[in-house]
Amino acid sequence: MIAPAMADSTLAQRLLDGDRRALARAISLVEDDRPEGWELVKQVYPHTGKAAVVGFTGPPGVGKSTLIGALTKLRREAGRSVGVLSIDPSSPFTQGALLGDRIRLSEHFLDQGVFIRSMANRGALGGLSEAALQAALLLDAAGRQDVFVETVGVGQAEIDIIDHADTIVLVLMPGSGDSIQALKAGVMEIPDVIVINKADHPLTDTMVREIRGVLSLANLDHTPEEGAHGPEGRVGSWRVPIVKTEASNGTGVPELVQRLDEHRTHILAEGHLDERRARNLRNEVLAIATARMRRRLEQELHGDAEFKSLIEQVIERRLDPASAAAALLERPAAP
Amino acid sequence: MIAPAMADSTLAQRLLDGDRRALARAISLVEDDRPEGWELVKQVYPHTGKAAVVGFTGPPGVGKSTLIGALTKLRREAGRSVGVLSIDPSSPFTQGALLGDRIRLSEHFLDQGVFIRSMANRGALGGLSEAALQAALLLDAAGRQDVFVETVGVGQAEIDIIDHADTIVLVLMPGSGDSIQALKAGVMEIPDVIVINKADHPLTDTMVREIRGVLSLANLDHTPEEGAHGPEGRVGSWRVPIVKTEASNGTGVPELVQRLDEHRTHILAEGHLDERRARNLRNEVLAIATARMRRRLEQELHGDAEFKSLIEQVIERRLDPASAAAALLERPAAP
Repeated sequence: MIAPAMADSTLAQRLLDGDRRALARAISLVEDDRPEGWELVKQVYPHTGKAAVVGFTGPPGVGKSTLIGALTKLRREAGRSVGVLSIDPSSPFTQGALLGDRIRLSEHFLDQGVFIRSMANRGALGGLSEAALQAALLLDAAGRQDVFVETVGVGQAEIDIIDHADTIVLVLMPGSGDSIQALKAGVMEIPDVIVINKADHPLTDTMVREIRGVLSLANLDHTPEEGAHGPEGRVGSWRVPIVKTEASNGTGVPELVQRLDEHRTHILAEGHLDERRARNLRNEVLAIATARMRRRLEQELHGDAEFKSLIEQVIERRLDPASAAAALLERPAAP
Repeated sequence: MIAPAMADSTLAQRLLDGDRRALARAISLVEDDRPEGWELVKQVYPHTGKAAVVGFTGPPGVGKSTLIGALTKLRREAGRSVGVLSIDPSSPFTQGALLGDRIRLSEHFLDQGVFIRSMANRGALGGLSEAALQAALLLDAAGRQDVFVETVGVGQAEIDIIDHADTIVLVLMPGSGDSIQALKAGVMEIPDVIVINKADHPLTDTMVREIRGVLSLANLDHTPEEGAHGPEGRVGSWRVPIVKTEASNGTGVPELVQRLDEHRTHILAEGHLDERRARNLRNEVLAIATARMRRRLEQELHGDAEFKSLIEQVIERRLDPASAAAALLERPAAP
């Protein structure tokens, strides 16, 4: 039997060499929150930072997976290696509902230059974004030049993940009225690139005009003098392009490639990439620390008689929730 | 000058007597995270648990405020006192964008039986849901029989707030395609009541059929035998009604009142209200504890040289984020 430390360093080396099976194993370790997974990320971290990480967000059903499939095809034709990370936060009772999407990526399953992985939500206690960010680092370390991260949904965990991408793409389709309202109200942040997929629809151009209206308002509020978001802001001197695509037949996807490249050139030239990554890494450290504190607390409280008693008092309206929380935090730390 | 403790107990008494100015002051204390605010909630907490708390969620622009205004009118006509809490998570550069919504509630501004308050997002560090939940308790303690909580948006903070309501209403309008997709994919949880507002639209009935389709699928997955969500589940034996309204002229609002009352009767009869509240209070204690741990960590790290050095190492790819987080957590606690 190989000693664990030795096995780890072998796995790390194979990962850095781009071995697909090592990559798959490594992501599983991270997903299962195994100490070896974290150890591995630690070992390969110095080799990260090279991949162009593009995050895709938007409501379910707009065709994000199909779009990523079409994009992957073009990137492969240009000789680049691709990693795709699909974050699926669907609730337990619809698990598998999104399988259809993933099948659309299947034409790439046999291509060694494409690595596709989906990660499922691991319950309300969080941990998904933590694991997804580590998985993105592993894809980067394994030499994937393009890393596409796809999230379905709208929760904080998905926003956290997408925020760590170098370029953020919002994918909509004609009929995405709710998302446009959310952009308009400032509830959803302005992305770097907007795609209107399924653009073979009579209402597409109306939608483009609506989005242009929202963007021009956001730009007015983002004059560099005010510097509301500083140089790392997502609007600033970058003019957010709107790209019309029909991912299912490839229409518009070459233009999307061009816009993604332009955005990368822009953030490199302006120094925004480094600033954005520095800010994101700082947030990641804090997020991991917070998630661990919460997990530690949950573990301490599992089956804890004092906690049960505190909760009972809260339910009986004898003790308010904040006082109960304070009592928990004031307990001596577990040995 | 009155001693603080004395002032507090006076404020608590005035609050319990239903004094509006005391209520306004109390919510401000909680919103500003002042210790007196927390102390006050502690004092009045034994008098809470009486209000019927209804949470309204849904994309911006569907008319939630108008609907709550119309609902408030009917509740007032029935002699009930009402509190409205509007949670506005709009980003800093669109602050005030939702002011128009609030004006629609203005016909109630002079009515002593209606108390309206909006709370704004206080940045990424969280704290909003914590403060909003305390504010809801204060409204309850002040004798508001109906507490309507409205959130705009889709973030985790808003979901946390709405989850604490006794009855959850999802408000949509014709054109809310993204939300229906999110329901279908299981990304958005099934609420207790669905309202289609602005129902004077030719596509309303198509939308009702679509939603019925989603609900029947969700019900299939929720057979009591499987008990995926247990008795506290949002579907279970309750058949989620779809109510068509035109809030601006009151159409359909009496039916909504009836459905809300039916839901309350249902959860009381089945014991679900107590179960739901017990689960929510437990989550609230944990959420407050976690938020405080995070805040404590952020405060400790503000201007901390060791933290800065750790982050620099992470940015230079010499130390991975998880190891930096672990190093932070292993530091001796601040005195």
